[in-house]
Amino acid sequence: MSQNRQWILRARPPGEVGAAHFEIRSGARPVPGANEVLVRTIYLLVPPAMRLWMNEKASYVPAQPLGEVMMGITLGVVEASNVASLPVGTYVNGMGGCQEWFVAPPEQLMPLAPHPALPLAAYRSVLDVQGLTAYAGLTDICRPVAGETLVVTAAAGSVGSLVCQIARKLDVQVVGIAGGAEKCRWLRDDCGIAATIDYKADDVGARLDALCPNGIDMVFENVGGPVLDQLLDRINDRARIALCGMVASYNDGGTQSARALMQLVVKAARIEGFLVRDYFHRHAEVSARLQGWLLDGSLKYQLDILDGLDNLVVALRRMFHGENRGVQLLRLSGERL
Amino acid sequence: MSQNRQWILRARPPGEVGAAHFEIRSGARPVPGANEVLVRTIYLLVPPAMRLWMNEKASYVPAQPLGEVMMGITLGVVEASNVASLPVGTYVNGMGGCQEWFVAPPEQLMPLAPHPALPLAAYRSVLDVQGLTAYAGLTDICRPVAGETLVVTAAAGSVGSLVCQIARKLDVQVVGIAGGAEKCRWLRDDCGIAATIDYKADDVGARLDALCPNGIDMVFENVGGPVLDQLLDRINDRARIALCGMVASYNDGGTQSARALMQLVVKAARIEGFLVRDYFHRHAEVSARLQGWLLDGSLKYQLDILDGLDNLVVALRRMFHGENRGVQLLRLSGERL
Repeated sequence: MSQNRQWILRARPPGEVGAAHFEIRSGARPVPGANEVLVRTIYLLVPPAMRLWMNEKASYVPAQPLGEVMMGITLGVVEASNVASLPVGTYVNGMGGCQEWFVAPPEQLMPLAPHPALPLAAYRSVLDVQGLTAYAGLTDICRPVAGETLVVTAAAGSVGSLVCQIARKLDVQVVGIAGGAEKCRWLRDDCGIAATIDYKADDVGARLDALCPNGIDMVFENVGGPVLDQLLDRINDRARIALCGMVASYNDGGTQSARALMQLVVKAARIEGFLVRDYFHRHAEVSARLQGWLLDGSLKYQLDILDGLDNLVVALRRMFHGENRGVQLLRLSGERL
Repeated sequence: MSQNRQWILRARPPGEVGAAHFEIRSGARPVPGANEVLVRTIYLLVPPAMRLWMNEKASYVPAQPLGEVMMGITLGVVEASNVASLPVGTYVNGMGGCQEWFVAPPEQLMPLAPHPALPLAAYRSVLDVQGLTAYAGLTDICRPVAGETLVVTAAAGSVGSLVCQIARKLDVQVVGIAGGAEKCRWLRDDCGIAATIDYKADDVGARLDALCPNGIDMVFENVGGPVLDQLLDRINDRARIALCGMVASYNDGGTQSARALMQLVVKAARIEGFLVRDYFHRHAEVSARLQGWLLDGSLKYQLDILDGLDNLVVALRRMFHGENRGVQLLRLSGERL
């Protein structure tokens, strides 16, 4: 096959993304020029933020243009090379887009040295954006002190589950909020997070009162919406709330209760957003630490891998319905040459 | 007169405060015990936060109990003393309550040494809570860098007008938002804040675009509500938003648009509440600096003094309707012995 299949954004979804907003185009496989390599994409990461990129207004990146290949975060392998430092067979992370093949100069790629005992996909998930987001947000925005209480929303998610476990390593009291008994069970039994709340079944306020007898010092917030109000009602003086994402509002506008801001005043508390790109200079340091914990088995994670480029919209929709289990990835082609 | 007239909170106002929520009680003037002084209140400060104290739920202070003398921030003079360090005639700040007389031990009072060239009431306003709030919130929460752009809401208010002027001294670009042409004129002509927006008459978004060509780096927020959304839409990366108060929500619950929190994520920005009590250890240092600026005429302020304890509810209501001009105080008795 010398073709290259690509997802093209045709229309901006007003609400949830659907197949009608895209077309799949088949083009010719690109040819690398001078100082470029040809990359075959193996894994395409499907993060919630991808939905934000589709909006007309720029988010933390410029808006995805209509009629062009959808932006995408990729792990691939070099299949043809005009770059001495990136020989054929090198695994590389990059922004390859939602397509099977792409060409890029070396400054747009990060070569990987995957450990043979770990799955290759870990290098485009827990050992990459998700791990760095969790580690940086927890340590630099929440700034935990041993013995304090942290509540994590979307706690069984790709970032949240890492936040919970890293916080336990720092002797923080952790309460994880997740949707459904199965996610809570995984947090308890596999990740060692004893205190969980199933927001779909439990009385969140009553459970927070029971599980946080000393109040809430930190929140790692991935969701927003009404649960955040329940958390704000229980924060302690000088609480720190790290805003990693607001998945609840990605598909519509929505509103927040005014309690949010008033509670910040009366508790002298802080809500701070952050972007993982501001921590890329710590990628090597943090990934090395996380890789050690993966190898000794003390940091659990889940990958949810769907096969085939065709499943992009399916993957996005199941994520917004909370149906994925762990980091959502698409596998576009085989791991080996 | 040996009587002592007091405002008693009878019922918690569900919305705006009115006379029906209080009664005025006449009691006997108290007698100081051992290690106590008798204070005659001269000035009673009437801050917006007083409305919060009336709610059933504790704010940054415990809720005002029903049937008791309403909490109040006072400046008075010692009229009888059993404390060697506080002789008769000493001016003292304290939490004397909304009443004409009170007794207190010395640890609950702060003796004043008022400068004869300044009005006594300045020591329970610009040189006290309002000045410290403005100075600490601006320097410690917004952390301005010369050349950055700051927007201040309620900019003609008792705190906002000081923030504007102190920021100018730090070479910050200042835009003041206030309600009404007269307040904007005062900011421009008397306070030297060239860039003002009258939110009652102007297109706030268009004016912000014109006055903040490089975006907004800092907000000093006293109000909340829809103007905050206009500000959030224009913040720069790593913006700092100091939450001093949310006057727009004190009388009702209200909601904030979800833009608030998403903008924090995509701009890696911070909203931080603060309480002036956390800066009392800097009271002497900051007040001395502000007093110097008052004496050299480089810091303007307004006091809005109503005479008579009976005017408490009137004063509260005119503040929430934006009718006061400067710090709202009640004068209960004469300044001299």
